[in-house]
Amino acid sequence: MASDATGEQLDAVVETVRAAGGSAFVSRGVHRTIVGLVGDIEQFQSLNLQTFAGVADVVRISTPYKLVSRDNHPATSTVNVAGVEIGPSTFTLIAGPCAVETPEQTLAAARMAKNAGAALLRGGAYKPRTSPYAFQGLGEKGLRILAEVRDEVGLPIVTEVVDAHDVDTVASYADMLQIGTRNMQNFGLLQAVGSIGKPVMLKRGMNATIEEWLMAAEYVAQRGNLDIVLCERGIRTFETATRNTLDISAVPVVHQLSHLPVVVDPSHSGGRRDLVVPLSRAAIAAGADAVIVDVHPHPEQALCDGPQALVDEDLEQLAAAVRDLPPLLGRRLS
Amino acid sequence: MASDATGEQLDAVVETVRAAGGSAFVSRGVHRTIVGLVGDIEQFQSLNLQTFAGVADVVRISTPYKLVSRDNHPATSTVNVAGVEIGPSTFTLIAGPCAVETPEQTLAAARMAKNAGAALLRGGAYKPRTSPYAFQGLGEKGLRILAEVRDEVGLPIVTEVVDAHDVDTVASYADMLQIGTRNMQNFGLLQAVGSIGKPVMLKRGMNATIEEWLMAAEYVAQRGNLDIVLCERGIRTFETATRNTLDISAVPVVHQLSHLPVVVDPSHSGGRRDLVVPLSRAAIAAGADAVIVDVHPHPEQALCDGPQALVDEDLEQLAAAVRDLPPLLGRRLS
Amino acid sequence: MASDATGEQLDAVVETVRAAGGSAFVSRGVHRTIVGLVGDIEQFQSLNLQTFAGVADVVRISTPYKLVSRDNHPATSTVNVAGVEIGPSTFTLIAGPCAVETPEQTLAAARMAKNAGAALLRGGAYKPRTSPYAFQGLGEKGLRILAEVRDEVGLPIVTEVVDAHDVDTVASYADMLQIGTRNMQNFGLLQAVGSIGKPVMLKRGMNATIEEWLMAAEYVAQRGNLDIVLCERGIRTFETATRNTLDISAVPVVHQLSHLPVVVDPSHSGGRRDLVVPLSRAAIAAGADAVIVDVHPHPEQALCDGPQALVDEDLEQLAAAVRDLPPLLGRRLS
Amino acid sequence: MASDATGEQLDAVVETVRAAGGSAFVSRGVHRTIVGLVGDIEQFQSLNLQTFAGVADVVRISTPYKLVSRDNHPATSTVNVAGVEIGPSTFTLIAGPCAVETPEQTLAAARMAKNAGAALLRGGAYKPRTSPYAFQGLGEKGLRILAEVRDEVGLPIVTEVVDAHDVDTVASYADMLQIGTRNMQNFGLLQAVGSIGKPVMLKRGMNATIEEWLMAAEYVAQRGNLDIVLCERGIRTFETATRNTLDISAVPVVHQLSHLPVVVDPSHSGGRRDLVVPLSRAAIAAGADAVIVDVHPHPEQALCDGPQALVDEDLEQLAAAVRDLPPLLGRRLS
Repeated sequence: MASDATGEQLDAVVETVRAAGGSAFVSRGVHRTIVGLVGDIEQFQSLNLQTFAGVADVVRISTPYKLVSRDNHPATSTVNVAGVEIGPSTFTLIAGPCAVETPEQTLAAARMAKNAGAALLRGGAYKPRTSPYAFQGLGEKGLRILAEVRDEVGLPIVTEVVDAHDVDTVASYADMLQIGTRNMQNFGLLQAVGSIGKPVMLKRGMNATIEEWLMAAEYVAQRGNLDIVLCERGIRTFETATRNTLDISAVPVVHQLSHLPVVVDPSHSGGRRDLVVPLSRAAIAAGADAVIVDVHPHPEQALCDGPQALVDEDLEQLAAAVRDLPPLLGRRLS
Repeated sequence: MASDATGEQLDAVVETVRAAGGSAFVSRGVHRTIVGLVGDIEQFQSLNLQTFAGVADVVRISTPYKLVSRDNHPATSTVNVAGVEIGPSTFTLIAGPCAVETPEQTLAAARMAKNAGAALLRGGAYKPRTSPYAFQGLGEKGLRILAEVRDEVGLPIVTEVVDAHDVDTVASYADMLQIGTRNMQNFGLLQAVGSIGKPVMLKRGMNATIEEWLMAAEYVAQRGNLDIVLCERGIRTFETATRNTLDISAVPVVHQLSHLPVVVDPSHSGGRRDLVVPLSRAAIAAGADAVIVDVHPHPEQALCDGPQALVDEDLEQLAAAVRDLPPLLGRRLS
Repeated sequence: MASDATGEQLDAVVETVRAAGGSAFVSRGVHRTIVGLVGDIEQFQSLNLQTFAGVADVVRISTPYKLVSRDNHPATSTVNVAGVEIGPSTFTLIAGPCAVETPEQTLAAARMAKNAGAALLRGGAYKPRTSPYAFQGLGEKGLRILAEVRDEVGLPIVTEVVDAHDVDTVASYADMLQIGTRNMQNFGLLQAVGSIGKPVMLKRGMNATIEEWLMAAEYVAQRGNLDIVLCERGIRTFETATRNTLDISAVPVVHQLSHLPVVVDPSHSGGRRDLVVPLSRAAIAAGADAVIVDVHPHPEQALCDGPQALVDEDLEQLAAAVRDLPPLLGRRLS
Repeated sequence: MASDATGEQLDAVVETVRAAGGSAFVSRGVHRTIVGLVGDIEQFQSLNLQTFAGVADVVRISTPYKLVSRDNHPATSTVNVAGVEIGPSTFTLIAGPCAVETPEQTLAAARMAKNAGAALLRGGAYKPRTSPYAFQGLGEKGLRILAEVRDEVGLPIVTEVVDAHDVDTVASYADMLQIGTRNMQNFGLLQAVGSIGKPVMLKRGMNATIEEWLMAAEYVAQRGNLDIVLCERGIRTFETATRNTLDISAVPVVHQLSHLPVVVDPSHSGGRRDLVVPLSRAAIAAGADAVIVDVHPHPEQALCDGPQALVDEDLEQLAAAVRDLPPLLGRRLS
């Protein structure tokens, strides 16, 4: 309550809460009176207590997500992607081209990925781009290329879906659907992938708090799909030396708040090839369940994000990291 | 170029640029050599010069948007919304409830808006919400309420569309379509509203740079729709005293970069009723072409964003501001 | 408390608080138990309740500053700077060169300032600069120039002090001491100016929350000096179109939290001359008690921050704004 | 140049640059003309080209720091702190209490540190605190306690200095001087520690870009002291789940730009004990030359930052990490 709130104003708050079925506990101090509410938090929000006379501030204490919270699901989940496990006892490398361009490029990238120890192949057929003048992806033709390369190389596919009305099409090819950073709060899309019965990789919005990210996952979970992995890919800060700032702390923080596995994307957060290997090592060491990296046989010809794609020499270092570090943390390579 | 770049590396860059039809001008210093490129910037991006050996950094100098740039369209545009002008010689107040809840609430809010000097009615029928457990809007039923209130009160309607596949439905009721902050980079939605032939209000993403916002407008413009107004609604920063930080500088900055009108939303940026009037005054004084505010006959019962809705006493202050300030800046009230 | 906290853990918290002389009110819900504390907040912090077993989070509800809080001092303060008032019934223009360079330049800038309606002269003799290779100010020689110009033009002086051990020297010349953004948490300096008996202008740290800014003011106030004006000068965000983002909302927010007057610096926040007049207008309209701007007779020769200094043509617009806008808000020009 | 710049305006820029002893190379495009400058960058800044008619923007390409740049010093430096090396072939653990409180607490913390593998003892005698009502440190009495504990336990001391006029005193006890995050741009203090002949640990300002941080190091280096280690301790972002956001990418980025060693502080960045071990592992894996952590024998009684101090059980995990991870990266434990 405000320092000049009256007894009547306090009573109005308490009665409103009780009328809504909640409990209100009043703590009176010399300068301030605090009212603690216990009950259904969604209902309390609809009371608009903030607008009541005499109320200085309303602070929420409990978490607003349920299905993805560790509170209600203490064991860490393992998500199975066409036989590949992402979870607490394994470490998984996901690699591939940022964008599918040609069958040859995709096949070469997939082989690079597999040689480096990857268990899953990433590759974009639908690309959300800041500029309408930039390459927007091959669409379903790209999905067919990915499916052929999967048959050839034997790695299940992770690929992005950007529109709710493409979900069925993408799901008919992909083993795991990716929601990109710009779509983390595209709620129609979240609900659509929540209903499709395939694992989902939900990238963090570059401006999203961890709580908002978990709320977005709750949208997917609410439709019955709990096969979700969360992907930290960097947040937007004032620092311009890197494209975004990888929030490495998000890995242990999410593991504490949620039972869902966490993936780190060191390629898109930094936007620089020379950072991918050190950041991949950091992600493994921080406890990430997987990393997802861009590889390209000829980065200087890439139609998208060439500056961050790994080439063969980097991949040897990455292969050593995914081989040597996970066992120190009690994990085996998927 | 890097300080240890070789002549061969420099030549490779210059030749690649020339082969792509561009020009490369070399400036040699003691420690650094700089190569200036002139030509088609989209094509240069596809060259991935950043990945070339010896290249230290690539810095873009010219703007990546064209249709919405003031460079190619020096006169400021006026957007006509069912007879109401938003542009450089007028000032427009847009007001209404955050969410349409009932016919009575919407009608009462519309009358409050009109009494305060509003020329356009805002109101949400489709609401993107962070939590799947929060009120999501009335959908088409809400649009019908808005249309009835328009007939009764005489104010054209601005309302949000959140999914590309609802664009036709929303456009059949609305006089202006709003793209919300979470959808600023929902490119499919931008393209859909770009094709519909109705004015568009494009809210800035809460994490979007001004350049990205103009690129999003370019997506709409590219489909043939230049009836766009840009709405500044606060950006995400470290400050927690306000929900977001209103970037008031965006008003003159956008006016310098683009010919499109600029609207300010002081309700959603602050999230606090006590800030709406001072921020509205600031917006008018900074040169905004319109402000858009939440009003509600009973904020304490609002299903959405009640804490920021203006009530009657605030509206008197707002009405005085929209009456007195614009003439000082050479504008008349729409 | 955590959802799995035991009764013993709860009792330990309650007993610790009571042993420290506070009161603890327990609110038990189905999933969560909340403990409300009432008493001396500084003492509670030293209890480290966050480290107790079973504690999920500690949230502070009351404000940590006292002397500068409006709670304990409901009337807005007026600060008198050598006869010039900064407070709720006046509007004050402060103008002058970013850095004192020569007697001629300073005199010319002071006359420009006075002609535009300024009541106080700003000018830097000690300049904190990011680069050790940049111009660092004239030091005491600059102070003597300022004093001579004051005698000539009749405007009291505001100037920055950057080191606690220069406070006596600067105070012997200046009418008001300025603490710059980089020194907002230089606590030794804050305490030194708190003891000197001259008014203080405390700029907000470019990364400081409003609460931290008020805490810094509390350091000054605690030494017995309540003649403090707070200066909003932009915060650091992801947006790069402006040097910093002017947090215009800080004006009404600080007025609500504190009794101290608020000044806005539109020159340093934007770093661009073309933004100074629109942002000055916005500041006046938002309720600022003063604005402080850079002027320079020859900006293209300025040794510091030339790109943002106003020249004669801009000053005419600024003079019109400080003449016409404050009366609309019930203020007279100082 | 602006798209409407005239030939005369272009000539004025070119002539001004040449008159200042630089070279100007002109690249003419259809829409834009770009002028590349080569010469002394500090001198160019004093030209204020941004203020010239027809100039659209000025973009700096080369780095503004010299002594700390890797360009001029390709080999990574090793800093020797009383016999303990911090550099590319070692990994160093620095540990101790956030604040020195009593001889017993400091001695116990030092023994915990040494048992965990620490080679240096940290501990604060002078504490910069946001609130004037918080514990401010023991001052010189704290330094004497540190010196006694050093004699007893055998670990050299790192301790913070917050005021230029305490530098001699602190240096007479300490083996390495620490500059804290709030003082990163306290230029008088930087110059004072630059003249004292002891190694310096320079913490990154919580709002500083990497470039500003290197510029601050340049202030120290310019006074003749190149025994500097840079300490990443988290930056301020919108995320509130952690106190600050550890910018793990800063480790490889600084290693690429500068020859100075990099330390990571996982205790202050997160402000949470449960994050210290995972973030320490991440720091080692990302290539940090050292980590600095808070330990306390009784965190629940700590006068400062108790919530983040490690206790015995965490220290066993940390000891394992500093033993097992560095050899995988070609380093031995200092």
